[in-house]
Formats: sequence, structure tokens, C-alpha cells
Amino acid sequence: MAKQLMDLQLDEEFELYVLLKEAKKRVAKNGKNFISLVFQDSSGQLPGKYWDASAADIQQFVSGRVVLLKGKRENYMNSPQIRIMAMRLAKNDEPHDPLAFIKRAPMTRNQMEDIINQTIFEITNATYNRIVRALIAKHADAFFTYPAAKSNHHDFAGGLAFHTISILRLAHSIVNQYQDIDAPLLYAGTILHDLGKTIELSGPVATEYTLAGNLLGHLSIMDAEIVEAADKLGISRDSQDLILLRHMILAHHGLLEYGSPERPQILEAEILHHLDELDATIMMIQSALKNVAPGDYTDRIFGLDNRRFYKPKPPVPTQKPSQSQLF
Amino acid sequence: MAKQLMDLQLDEEFELYVLLKEAKKRVAKNGKNFISLVFQDSSGQLPGKYWDASAADIQQFVSGRVVLLKGKRENYMNSPQIRIMAMRLAKNDEPHDPLAFIKRAPMTRNQMEDIINQTIFEITNATYNRIVRALIAKHADAFFTYPAAKSNHHDFAGGLAFHTISILRLAHSIVNQYQDIDAPLLYAGTILHDLGKTIELSGPVATEYTLAGNLLGHLSIMDAEIVEAADKLGISRDSQDLILLRHMILAHHGLLEYGSPERPQILEAEILHHLDELDATIMMIQSALKNVAPGDYTDRIFGLDNRRFYKPKPPVPTQKPSQSQLF
Amino acid sequence: MAKQLMDLQLDEEFELYVLLKEAKKRVAKNGKNFISLVFQDSSGQLPGKYWDASAADIQQFVSGRVVLLKGKRENYMNSPQIRIMAMRLAKNDEPHDPLAFIKRAPMTRNQMEDIINQTIFEITNATYNRIVRALIAKHADAFFTYPAAKSNHHDFAGGLAFHTISILRLAHSIVNQYQDIDAPLLYAGTILHDLGKTIELSGPVATEYTLAGNLLGHLSIMDAEIVEAADKLGISRDSQDLILLRHMILAHHGLLEYGSPERPQILEAEILHHLDELDATIMMIQSALKNVAPGDYTDRIFGLDNRRFYKPKPPVPTQKPSQSQLF
Amino acid sequence: MAKQLMDLQLDEEFELYVLLKEAKKRVAKNGKNFISLVFQDSSGQLPGKYWDASAADIQQFVSGRVVLLKGKRENYMNSPQIRIMAMRLAKNDEPHDPLAFIKRAPMTRNQMEDIINQTIFEITNATYNRIVRALIAKHADAFFTYPAAKSNHHDFAGGLAFHTISILRLAHSIVNQYQDIDAPLLYAGTILHDLGKTIELSGPVATEYTLAGNLLGHLSIMDAEIVEAADKLGISRDSQDLILLRHMILAHHGLLEYGSPERPQILEAEILHHLDELDATIMMIQSALKNVAPGDYTDRIFGLDNRRFYKPKPPVPTQKPSQSQLF
Amino acid sequence: MAKQLMDLQLDEEFELYVLLKEAKKRVAKNGKNFISLVFQDSSGQLPGKYWDASAADIQQFVSGRVVLLKGKRENYMNSPQIRIMAMRLAKNDEPHDPLAFIKRAPMTRNQMEDIINQTIFEITNATYNRIVRALIAKHADAFFTYPAAKSNHHDFAGGLAFHTISILRLAHSIVNQYQDIDAPLLYAGTILHDLGKTIELSGPVATEYTLAGNLLGHLSIMDAEIVEAADKLGISRDSQDLILLRHMILAHHGLLEYGSPERPQILEAEILHHLDELDATIMMIQSALKNVAPGDYTDRIFGLDNRRFYKPKPPVPTQKPSQSQLF
Amino acid sequence: MAKQLMDLQLDEEFELYVLLKEAKKRVAKNGKNFISLVFQDSSGQLPGKYWDASAADIQQFVSGRVVLLKGKRENYMNSPQIRIMAMRLAKNDEPHDPLAFIKRAPMTRNQMEDIINQTIFEITNATYNRIVRALIAKHADAFFTYPAAKSNHHDFAGGLAFHTISILRLAHSIVNQYQDIDAPLLYAGTILHDLGKTIELSGPVATEYTLAGNLLGHLSIMDAEIVEAADKLGISRDSQDLILLRHMILAHHGLLEYGSPERPQILEAEILHHLDELDATIMMIQSALKNVAPGDYTDRIFGLDNRRFYKPKPPVPTQKPSQSQLF
Repeated sequence: MAKQLMDLQLDEEFELYVLLKEAKKRVAKNGKNFISLVFQDSSGQLPGKYWDASAADIQQFVSGRVVLLKGKRENYMNSPQIRIMAMRLAKNDEPHDPLAFIKRAPMTRNQMEDIINQTIFEITNATYNRIVRALIAKHADAFFTYPAAKSNHHDFAGGLAFHTISILRLAHSIVNQYQDIDAPLLYAGTILHDLGKTIELSGPVATEYTLAGNLLGHLSIMDAEIVEAADKLGISRDSQDLILLRHMILAHHGLLEYGSPERPQILEAEILHHLDELDATIMMIQSALKNVAPGDYTDRIFGLDNRRFYKPKPPVPTQKPSQSQLF
Repeated sequence: MAKQLMDLQLDEEFELYVLLKEAKKRVAKNGKNFISLVFQDSSGQLPGKYWDASAADIQQFVSGRVVLLKGKRENYMNSPQIRIMAMRLAKNDEPHDPLAFIKRAPMTRNQMEDIINQTIFEITNATYNRIVRALIAKHADAFFTYPAAKSNHHDFAGGLAFHTISILRLAHSIVNQYQDIDAPLLYAGTILHDLGKTIELSGPVATEYTLAGNLLGHLSIMDAEIVEAADKLGISRDSQDLILLRHMILAHHGLLEYGSPERPQILEAEILHHLDELDATIMMIQSALKNVAPGDYTDRIFGLDNRRFYKPKPPVPTQKPSQSQLF
Repeated sequence: MAKQLMDLQLDEEFELYVLLKEAKKRVAKNGKNFISLVFQDSSGQLPGKYWDASAADIQQFVSGRVVLLKGKRENYMNSPQIRIMAMRLAKNDEPHDPLAFIKRAPMTRNQMEDIINQTIFEITNATYNRIVRALIAKHADAFFTYPAAKSNHHDFAGGLAFHTISILRLAHSIVNQYQDIDAPLLYAGTILHDLGKTIELSGPVATEYTLAGNLLGHLSIMDAEIVEAADKLGISRDSQDLILLRHMILAHHGLLEYGSPERPQILEAEILHHLDELDATIMMIQSALKNVAPGDYTDRIFGLDNRRFYKPKPPVPTQKPSQSQLF
Repeated sequence: MAKQLMDLQLDEEFELYVLLKEAKKRVAKNGKNFISLVFQDSSGQLPGKYWDASAADIQQFVSGRVVLLKGKRENYMNSPQIRIMAMRLAKNDEPHDPLAFIKRAPMTRNQMEDIINQTIFEITNATYNRIVRALIAKHADAFFTYPAAKSNHHDFAGGLAFHTISILRLAHSIVNQYQDIDAPLLYAGTILHDLGKTIELSGPVATEYTLAGNLLGHLSIMDAEIVEAADKLGISRDSQDLILLRHMILAHHGLLEYGSPERPQILEAEILHHLDELDATIMMIQSALKNVAPGDYTDRIFGLDNRRFYKPKPPVPTQKPSQSQLF
Repeated sequence: MAKQLMDLQLDEEFELYVLLKEAKKRVAKNGKNFISLVFQDSSGQLPGKYWDASAADIQQFVSGRVVLLKGKRENYMNSPQIRIMAMRLAKNDEPHDPLAFIKRAPMTRNQMEDIINQTIFEITNATYNRIVRALIAKHADAFFTYPAAKSNHHDFAGGLAFHTISILRLAHSIVNQYQDIDAPLLYAGTILHDLGKTIELSGPVATEYTLAGNLLGHLSIMDAEIVEAADKLGISRDSQDLILLRHMILAHHGLLEYGSPERPQILEAEILHHLDELDATIMMIQSALKNVAPGDYTDRIFGLDNRRFYKPKPPVPTQKPSQSQLF
Repeated sequence: MAKQLMDLQLDEEFELYVLLKEAKKRVAKNGKNFISLVFQDSSGQLPGKYWDASAADIQQFVSGRVVLLKGKRENYMNSPQIRIMAMRLAKNDEPHDPLAFIKRAPMTRNQMEDIINQTIFEITNATYNRIVRALIAKHADAFFTYPAAKSNHHDFAGGLAFHTISILRLAHSIVNQYQDIDAPLLYAGTILHDLGKTIELSGPVATEYTLAGNLLGHLSIMDAEIVEAADKLGISRDSQDLILLRHMILAHHGLLEYGSPERPQILEAEILHHLDELDATIMMIQSALKNVAPGDYTDRIFGLDNRRFYKPKPPVPTQKPSQSQLF
């Protein structure tokens, strides 16, 4: 595999195609403009400063563009950074697709589509089935490429679909273990619960909140999408099915303080809330533990009330446990 | 004016047309059915028990029906109640419209329609204007007859429109006093902010929450209505106007804990939240003070953190204040 | 199956063996003693009053005893109750085991023992394995017969083991779905997490909190049990394994406010907390829904922030959903 | 109009009279003293450092003094600052009144005095009238020149009176719209509610909290002032009027958490609390929006729970709204 | 000692002088007036109903009067009550002082005066000394006879002074143990901290909150009293001593949520807050424990977050502990 | 007394034995390693940087070692720091005991041992006495040398014992003042309440939390220690004495939010909680006030909700207070 940003050693010089994840115009102490940059490829990201930026530079080097970067990996204030030696936009016959430079879900789009397909077959209630089909079809491209969040958990390309699928797997376990769960409702609610993020967020690259995202939030966005889909499919606004499905989406944050306008009032909505939280929590902790040596603690995790988590040392080999039966 | 429920003296016998506000089947100590009733006219309400109820009685004497009641006002456990001597449903040529027996807003529907009309003329932004027209036209009957809440504040027929108009008057004061307020947005948001209650609540008589009311809430209900209206009017889902108007409705409870999925993020939404709270607060306090003698305290008001309010005694006449100018 | 308490009709006379679930001495208006009783069999419970109780009656009719009850099912204040016609303690050759009269887990003790056995084989870490074996062996009788709580969730005989096994099933799903979970630690922590309830609670019949339960709580009780077991097994107090296992128990309530002296700081402790909450929540909601007709709401559930849950009506048969593949 | 601080371009040299808003002695890396300064005129403020400060410099260049400053506007770390070339105190025949260099309310003192005068005439209750007259007369100079807060809202000269007058205007709207409001009490409470800030704060220039401000707060300060005024005017400590007026001041923060020792328990106190909050909120949002381009968000506003507010883009001209009457 | 209310047996007839602690007019089922009474002497209290009350009865049998009561102790709904056989007001030559019929502090007024006297000698700061003298002299009668609260803690005659003295004793321990405590300030603040209750409460008998108590609270009441005393004594409003003493009173509830407009900001105020809470807590727990048998729990104590407290059983005699020295 | 770190003047050169309180490897801008150090002696601490650190330097200059430091006191960014000129480890015949370089409690170990000895004699209950003896004997060295906390209060060598003794003195005052306090239980609980910190913290020098400290906390640590001691002493797990003593430790943080798994449910536990808080609070405020000039405020104190405390100016001499007796 070709060398990537995270492979560079201190003082190593290099020439690489990288994505501009962030690009902000600043004014230097000498009064001239420079661009504060964050370079990214699928291995990770590093900052750098483009000094004495001309108006043309500022116009072309914007976030979301791929560049050919010639530089040197240095250290500043104990943190690694790039000294830029030369930089130009990638040409059309060079690698220039931003999506190729960002972290991706551990499943391919095809794999994820198959799972969604399969699950839709299990949604045997016609109302739920038709609405899910309509909305997934409408937002498919974004659904399979967007992250699940700007930061925090599943913040990689395809993270939205991957997080959804992860909850679906948990939901199947629940349906197998407990009786009297309305599986079609649970699956339909799961598939749609975060689909509004395709409108709340700006895209898989250089992700920001949109105006609708900030002022409406993905719950209300998706709620209105469901109603519109139902209208088009001739499903009555008063149908219990429609109200239950809308409730699944509106209530999935569990608490009013977390932005749900209603708390869960049906069993399946309560379950979806728990599974959503559980999957996001595991993902956040496991991401944080990856950067930590055994015996150490992670940094404080914002999304988990600023708790730190401990990574245990490998267990000392001990005597084999008894194989006798207890009862 | 004819005698009403609240005019009856202890032990007075009477014959009156009254509304059955509540009617619940119960089983008596002797194992027979009875109906626990609440009678209502526009003067107030009184309870009573219909003993030895037959199946036919139970079927006809349901909440929302008007009856001709022959009875006697007695006392039980220190509270007034009705001893039922005879009771039958009102006939079609007798007073039988339930709406005639409930408390009403202090303005007529015509007066309120005029004010809404006038305000719509002041909504000079075409997007807001068209959506408000469409939705008020669609829900007009309910808007002008429903209460603003099942209990708490403005819980009388026409209360929803009256509360809306009361906020509109405050909003006009604000627009006059402060610069740079987007008046059309503030007025449009005000008119629509509680309109979802026409779907959240069951009606002006024997008001209950509907399934949609419980599981979705009036904020999300109206949000979806606005989107549907915009679709029909050909207004783009991404138009800033539409997003701002939706935000006015979604944010008007002010805090996530109060059921708004987003807190106000534009000036007009913050103002609407304050005016809504102010009008509801004044109405709750003034209703409570009506039942209290000067020098006493109201009962604890649930909607105001269980505070009691004091009704001052009339001021003692004192010397006339100075008429000289201070500065 | 023989007739039980819940099968009785209004005014039906009967003679049944039943358990005294509660028995409280009271003084009547006439100054004489009576006993306020709650009768129970596995179908449910009903109250009754034993009037003019002699000193001997008061001494023998105490909670936890089985009696032969001759009575009549009546109604008082709209609630069913028993009029006692005659009552005596059950003899040794009659049904007199209190455990036979209380609700039971939907699995037999043998079935539950098998699952625990199997899981212990999967606990391949010797420290965890040995401690779990020692403590389950020590508390086996109570573990398989106690409820999981005095009220709220899994409040039936065998509920403690059943709840534990239910979480173990969820834990297996998690281990299958996610990488890098320490399965032995998760299983060991799950088996022990509520085992302290065998000391916190008084037993399967007429369950009360013990003094240790009130003043120490089942978390600290089990923590000290684990340390004692480790001492006896020669496991060092400073071993990381021991500290992690103790942390699983101490942190499983998740929040300080819920009685955990530490919040989860390892991944497996966080997962155990979520699964515990999830299983208890599903159980509480499903119990409540059992008593409710479709289209109605449950009573407010204390353990779920006083929320009510809706039981949907059966779906209206609709057109068959599409069988075409979406992607 | 003469050039001011905010008019200076990068690298522009200038000579201006400015106020020293802050002046703090510091020790430089080389061990010598310097003075860290903030310069201010009514256009805004800029920082600068006075190096190698002698003892005499430190004594004369203190906050609150006006200086003639010769300097150059530079940039440091992306923020503008002043390089000081020469600096001396303003002489008596030069501009040297600090008040001339700070931002001011948008009304003159005369205009504000007139409004207060007028309102006092409307306070027809003699107790309120006499106390208000006495206290406004006593604190007039401070009342019309102090800011309403050290920072947050109305933090400009005359802000205290301007904020008071703004609430008075809202209060008049309320009195016009609702019945049974005790207007004299509402107006008197409004005028006095923040008057304690004349003792809580140090003055209009270089505003700090006084010892009394920190340890007593402006509510208790004003409460004691009212009692003292009443004593001097021969008004009984037990008079209901006096208790109600004191309650208006003590309760106007609305919640105990906000420093009110009692929550509002009369209608007029509740209204005053709402109007105070409403006016301060509008002022904070509008100040923040001034520094923001359409389509952008303000910085997070500390006094509003760290919310950001959106400044909408100008509406796109659309078709004219319908002029037809709806009802 | 003469027989008292708490000495009466079931069905015992008696004739006793007792205090009417409460007397409320009610309407009976038959429409006639009765008076709902609570009788009290220093042993405790019992309820009773005075049927068929005439207008004259209602006028004379009001709370705070002593009566000669002829009655019988009965039981109603499992609670003891008095059947009234005859009742008349006590005459002037009979026991008729209400104070003789209520529970009293365990010290005499003389004893308590001596301690206050002594402490005032220790207040060597002239400002504190003079203000304390003035205010204690002004409110002496109420200070030594009022309870410290309407209910909760020290709710007996003389409780206010007794609670104050109890804190003074703790304060002396603190002054002895820690260095750099301003003892005169701590003692002065302690003596005055609750003195405002002499105005907040209506008196030692049938204690209610006054209007000033409800709308101002005892903190603000005493704050204004201190300022007035300082004015009369010629102590400047700006004196640090005065500000510190006022702060002691205003801050002694410790938290804004408990009604202090400022949190403690000097060491002595923080200490006073802790000692006040400690003494009240001990008193509440010990009162509750008095009514409880060893091995039982108290009822839930409202003032202590509804906690129940356990009364341990007497310890089992064990072997004598070692008398050897550890170090 | 010899010169110490806090005695150094700006630019003064020196040679001193000092402790390395902190030593962290860092990478400089030039890519080379340096060590970021904090030097400490009993007068205080100062930072410094050891540039161009070799692998050998990094290995030997670790936290907890004593070094002979030749350096110069300089200023950087307005804060004092050490420029290191030469540095080597102290030899065995030079001062090299880290404990000699840290702040110490104001009592000697002997004095503190005497007080603990004495108090143990007062613990007349054999259960408490034997457990306290066993645990204090086991942990004596750590108990008399550890701080009471990593930072916040009593963060000096011997602070743990000193804080314990300070609470014991308060406890004696309480026992003298109030009746019915179980003194042996209160003293035993006090001695053990923080003893778990000997395992929670790493030691008196360069104090950190241990793994057990982070994952279990000192409450659960000591609870298990008590149970183990009781096991060894043959005291039954069900003995009321043991349960009460464990409750004292588990409940002493008072609130669940502060890490107590149970709130106090016996009088002595409630008292211990209050005294613990009171002593820690006084210590924190007095430490902070030491660094502050009269008339100034302390920095915000983290452990006291970020409050600042005011240090009053010396009182102005005033007229002598009256010596007359008030009553």
C-alpha cells in the first residue's frame, strides 16, 4: 500500500495526494494572509499553514479539494504538523475524488445495500414497507455515504448506514429473545431513525450542519419526509400505522433534553432508543481505546459525560479454570 | 338570564338543560352499575351519581350529550353535588348543542376572525402569507372553537384563537417598540404556533388528547402540516422562509425540556416563546385570583411550579401623591 | 387446572388454599382488633379483612403462611375484595409451601441452572471463573428462587436468575456482533451483578429489604462478597482481574444518582449497565401492557419516570407489500 | 465626525484622545514592568502594551483616565492592537471627561427624565409615589449614567435608565391589554427594580462590582433603601403597600437560582420578571446580531445559555401575497 | 402531674383544660355547620369535631383560645380522636394562657437570656455589638418565645432562641479549634441569623406565616432591620463591618435554591451556614427517632429529602475491648 | 533556616536540594527530547525545563527523586520559572528523602498517634474497637504520611491523619453538646472514613490515583477492608454493629451524586458527613485566604462550586462596646 500521512516520520520529506479537510483564511502578524489547513487521507489528518497566500490561492485551496502536496513532517509545540513546500490542485487525470481520501465504514456499500434489502423484506406491514422503500430510494446516495455525525460516533464515510445496520443486528437479537415485539415497526423505525441526517448534514466531506439541520434537526426533518411520503402513497394522516412510525422517529432520542419532542410511549420506540444509545456508546469507547496503550486511560469523551475509559493490560496467564459442572 | 348551575342554593330543586361533561360507568358496593357524572353549563360544573343504571342508560348518557335534568342541589363531604331525580336526553327541538353549555372566550368568533384577517394583511411576505392562509382556512372551525389546553390556561371554547390573538396584540407592541423585528415572520409564527392543537385535542367538548396528540404533540403535527401546505403551494423545501417558519413553531416552547426539539435560534422565535409564556401565565394567575377573596392566596397552580399567588386587599385611601415634577 | 383467585366471579362463594402475602394488625372504629390481609396465589392477589381478631388469630395469621380460606368475592368502592367466612392454617398434609402460591419465572430452575453452567464454561479467565463458581455455589438456593426486586421488574419467584439469564443472552449477542469485547469479564460481571440481592432482600415470599439491604445496598454487599471469595481463593487484592470484576458490580447502575459509587470506566461495565437497563425496561413495559386492552394506555410506570405506554390496536389488513428488491 | 479607534486601517499611524478602560501592571519576560492597556472611545476598544513602564507611568496611567495617544494600528495573532509610540494624560483644557469616550444609550438624559417624570404621575398610589420620588431623587445621577450591567446587556452609559424605560413601555402595553393589573405598583416596581445597581456597580467608567455589590447584591441593597425611605416618610413597616413594593424588587429575578430570595407571589411581580427578561433578551440578541453578516450565526451568548443566533439572509422577492379577505 | 391528652386510654371520659390549636368552620353532609378542631396541651394533640355549631360557637371557638373540654377518647379510621361532650371557654380565674399548653424548649427563658448576655460580651467589635444589642432588645419577647419554624425543626415555644443558642455552642467549639476565625462576627451573625422569624411568623401559638413572611422572607426582613438599626446608631451604610454582618444573614441558607440571595463569600458566613444546617438536622432526626422503637425506621422526614432513619437495637454485650495502647 | 525555593529573587542564582514533583518527557520544536519538570521543597514549587535530554537523563530524572539543582530564577510569560544550569541526583549521604521536601501537617506523627490512641480507648464497643485497631495497625504508615487528597484540601504529607483528627475534635464537641449520640460508633466511623485513601492514592510524594482508586474508590475499598477484618476477627457478617460501621463509611459522602452508594440512614452517619464537609471546607477557604491580601478575593475554589472568598480588611478601631448587661 502506498505511503500515507500517518506513515510519515519526523523530518521526512514527501509528495502525496491529500484532501483539504479544512481551509480557513487568516491574517498573519505581518498583516499578510495565510491559509490554515488540515490535510486528510484515509489514514488520518495533519495540520499545516500556507503562508503569503494570494487571492488566487485563497480561492482555489478550499475545503473539499484534493491537492498534490510536497512537504515535510515537522513538530510544533509537541504536535506534528506539515511544512508546505509546494502545493497544487489535483488534475482530472490524477486522484481527485474527495471520497477516496476519507475514512470509510468497514463494509462496502454493496454489502450494506444487501442487508437493507433483506430487512425490508422482513417489514411485512405494507404501510411501513412502502414508506421505507420510498424514503430509502429517495435518499439512497446520501444514506450510504454520509457519516452518522459531524464528530463523536461513526464520523466516517458510510457511517450513517453502518450505524443503522449495527442497530438492525441488535434489533434482530431483541426480536429473537423477547416475545410480542412488533418487528416490522422496529425495523422500519430503525432504518428511518437517522435518515434525516442526509438533510441535516452537508455531506460526507468537510461535513457541516445545514441551516435546516441547525434550525429543525434531523428528527423533525425526517418526520416531515415521512408525512410527505405517506401523502404521495395515499396513506391517511390518521392511520395508526403512520402515527406509530412517526413516533418511532420523534421519540428515538429518548429524553426531551436530548431533543425528542416526545418520550417513547410504545415498547418498540423505547427499544430503538436503547439500541441507538448502546451502539453509539460502544463505537465511541472502542474508537477512543484504539489510541491508547494497555494500562492507560483514554482522553475524556465528550459524548459520554467526559468520562475516561481504562484499557486493561493483557491478563497474566493463570491456572486453567475448573471444567467441572457446577449444578 | 335564566337560572344556571352555579345559581342553585343548598337543597334547591330545579329542572335545567345541562351538558354531560363526563360520564363514567362504575360498579356500586351492591354490585350494580351506576354512572358517575359531571354536569356542566357555562356557569360552571357539579357532580352527580346516576344509580342503578340499565344498559340503555349507560349507552345514552355519555359525555358530550345534553340532558334535561331534574334534581336537587345537596352537599356531600363538604362539597356540593346533585341528587338526580329524573334525567332524559334533550330532544332536537330543545337546547341540545353542547357548545351552548360550555364557557366561552370573551370575544365572538366574528371579532376574532376580523383580527386574524387584519393580521394576515400585515404578513407581507408571500411565503408566510400563503401558508398561513392555507392552514387557517383548512382548520378554521377547530381554530375558533377549540380550547388552548385540556386544562391549565385558556381552557374554554374559543380559547385557542383567543390566546393566539392575545399574543398577536403583544407582538404588535413589540414590533412598535423595537427595531429590526421581522414582523411578518413573528405574526405568521404566532398564528400557527398552537394550531396543531386542533389535531392534538379531540374538540371543544369533553376535551381529550388524541393518539396523534399523545404520540406526536402539536409541534410536530403542525410542522408536518406546514410542509404539506408548502408542497401544495409549490414552495421549495429548502427555502429559507420555509425553514424559518417551521423553526418558529418547533422552537416556541423555548426549552428542550418543554418539548421543543430545538431551542430558539432566531430573534423572532425567542420573542414568540416569551410572549406565549407571558400570556399563558397572566391568564392562569388571573383565573386563579377570581376564586379568591382579597387578602387570601390562590390554590397552588400546577402550571406555575405549584406557586400560590396573593390577592392584595384594597389599598387604604392615603394622602394624594405629589403632583410636582421631579426633574 | 383448579380454580384460582383470579377466576372468581362477583358474589361467588369458594374454598381455596391461598397464601397470606400481607397481614397487618389494625384497630377498628369500634376499638377492636382486625387483620388487614392480602391473599395470593399464582394467579394474582385480593384483599380482605378478618374482623374481631383474637390474640391467637393475630399470632397465627401472619404474612408468609398458607391458609384454607372459605369466602365470597365481593366489591367495595369499585374494587374486588374477599368477604372471609372461615379461615384456618393449612396442615402439613395439605398444600402449605408458600412458594407454590406465588408467580414464578417462565423457566424451571433446572433450565436456568443449565444456562448458568454453560456460561461458566465460557468464562475462560481463571480468576473470574473461580470467583463466580464460589459465589454462585454459596448463594445458589437464593439465586434461583428470589425475585429481582421487591416490586418494579421481575418481581416473581426465580426472577433474579431469570433476569440474569436474560442479560446473558443479550451479552452473547453483543459479543457476537462487536469485536474486542472481553467476554469472560462481561459474563462474570453479569452473573454476579445482582447476586447481592440474595442478602439485600428477605426472600421469595413476602419480600422486604433487610437491614443490610437498606444500609449497604446490593452493590456493596456483593463487592465485599467478591473480596472475601478472592481472599479464600488466594487471589491478590491488587490483581487487575479482581479490580475489574469488582468494578463491573460497583458500576452497573451506571450513574452515581442510581447508587453506583463509580461510573463505568471500562467498556464491559458500560455494556453491562446498558443491558441491565434494557432488560428491566422491556420487562416492566411488557408486564404493564398485559393488563391493558389494545388502543389503551398502561397506568403510569414508576420505574420509567411515570410514563404511560400505548398498546396499539391490531393493524388493519392492507395490501401486500412489494416483494421487489430495492437495490 | 472626527476619526475614531474603529476607523483605523492596518498600519495606520494616528494621534487621538482615548480613554484607558483597563490598565494592569505586568512583569515582562525580561523582568521589567509593563502596563497592559485597553483603549476606548465611543466607537469601540483596542488593546495595547506600554513597555518599560516607570513607577511614575504606573501611577498615572490608570483605568478611567483620558490620554493623548500617538500610535499605530497593527495586528498580533490575527487580532488588531495598538503599537504605542507616545502617550500622555489629557490636560484640563483638552478633552478629558471619561464619559465622553464611552458608548451611550440611544436617548438623552433629558428624554429619559421626561419619561420617568410622566410615569411617576401615573403612580397614583401615594405610598409608591412618595418612595419612588425619594429614591429616584437620591440616586438620579447614577441612575441616568450607569450601565445596566458590567457586561451582558445594556452595558453602556445610561443603560440602566434606558433598560428601565424600555420595560416601562412594555408595562404600559400590558396594562392596556389586560384588565385588573395594578398599574401604579407595576410602574413603581419597574422603576426601582434595578436601582440598587447604582450601589452594586462602581460607576459608568471602568465598571466593577463594589464590596456591597458582591456580598449583598442589588436586590437586597434596594430593599433596604426602600425600607429606609419608608421610615423617613413615616410609612409603616407593616403596610401592605410597602410589603408589596418590596416584594416587587426582591422577586424580580423570578427564580431562587437567579438570586431572588422569594419567587413572585403577586401578579405584578410575575409580570415584571417576564418583561425584565424579555427586554434583556432582545437587547442581547440584537447587539450580537449587529456584528454578524446575513446568513451567519452570532458567537455563543453567555447570558442566553450559550446559544448562537442566526441572522437570516434578505428574503428573495416573491409574488405579492393575496389581498383577499380570508373570513 | 395532672392527666394530659396523651395519657388518655381508649373510651376514657375526661375533663381537661386544653388549647384550640386549629379551628376551621366546615359544612356537614346535612348542610349544617361544624367546627373541625385540634386540641393541644404540652403532651401532644388530638382532633375532634364540634357538630351543629351556632354562629356564636363559631365566633368564640377560634384557634389560640383555651377551653374546658369534657369528652371521650375514641378511635376513628384507626386514629384516635375526641368525642366532644361539652366545651366552654376558660375563664380568667382558670388556666387560660395559651403558652401554658404548648411544648417548650428544654431551657428556661432566664437560662437562655444568660447565655445570650454572655455571648454579647464576647462580641468585642463595637459595630456588631451595638446592632445585636439593639435588635435583640427590640425583639426580645418574640425571640425567647417563638418557635424556630412552623413545623420541621425546633417547632416548640422558645425554639428560636434554643436553636440560636445551640448554634452558638457549636460556634464556640469552632472558634476554639480553628485559628483566624472572626469570633465576634460569627457570634453576631449567629444571634441575628433567624431573628427575622419574629416577623415572618405569627407567634408561638397557632403559628402561621405573616404576609411579610410569605412575600419577603426572614432573611430580607432581618437585613432591613439591621440597616435601620445601623441608621439609628449612626453606622455608615458603607462600613465594611455593616456589609459583612448583613452578608452573614443574607447568605446563611448557603445556596440560592434555599433562598439566600448570595452564597457565602466570607469564611464566617460559610461556617454559620454549616452549623445552622447541622443543628437543624440533628434536631429533626432526634425528634423523629423519639417516636420509634429500636430496630425500626422513622417516617420519611420531609426536611431531609424524605429519608427515613434507622434506630439501632441496643448492642449485644460483647467481650471487653483491648486496653493496650496501639502506638 | 536554609534558603528555599520560595525565597529566591528574580535573576538570583542558587544551588539547592529539591524534589522532582513532576517529570514529563516532551518533544521540542527542534524534534529533540526535553523534560518538563516541577521542583518542590516544603516552601512551595517552581517549574523548569531540562533541554536536550538524553535517554539516560529521562531514565534518572523521574518524579519522586531528589536532585541537587544549580539554576537561576527567571520569569516567563509573567510567571516565575527556573533556568536549569546543572542537575544531578542526590547521593545517599546527601539529603535524598522525598518526604523531607514536601509540605507537612502542623502536628508531628507522634502527636497524631497519641490522639488516635486516646480516641480508641473511648471506643468502648468491642466490635468497633477491634476493627479500628486492626485496620489502623495494618495501614498505620500510610495513614500518618498520606495527604487527604491529591489536591483540594489537606493536600500535604500527614494530611489524611490530620483531617481525621480534626473531625474527631469536632465529633467530641458534638458528643458533649447533644444527647443520645453513639460516641463509639461516631469515633470509629470517623477514624475509618477516609482510610481507604491509603489504597486509593499512590503515596505522599507525587500523588496519583491508583487503578483501584479510579475503578473502586476509597469508600468501597475500605468497606471491603472492614469486612475482611471482621472475618479475621470472627465477627459475624450479619451483626448489626458491623452493618452500622460499614454504613458509616459508605454513607459519609452524604449524597449519591458525591459517590456514596447509600445516603446516611442513621444519626451518626449524618453527623459524620456534616463534620467531614465542614472541616474540608474550612481548610480549603483558609488555605486560599493565605495567598490573598486584606480587601481582596481568593481565586475561584474548585471544590466549593467555584466560589471566591473575600478577605476583610482589618476593622477600623471604634468606640468600645457597651459592657452593660442586656437582660
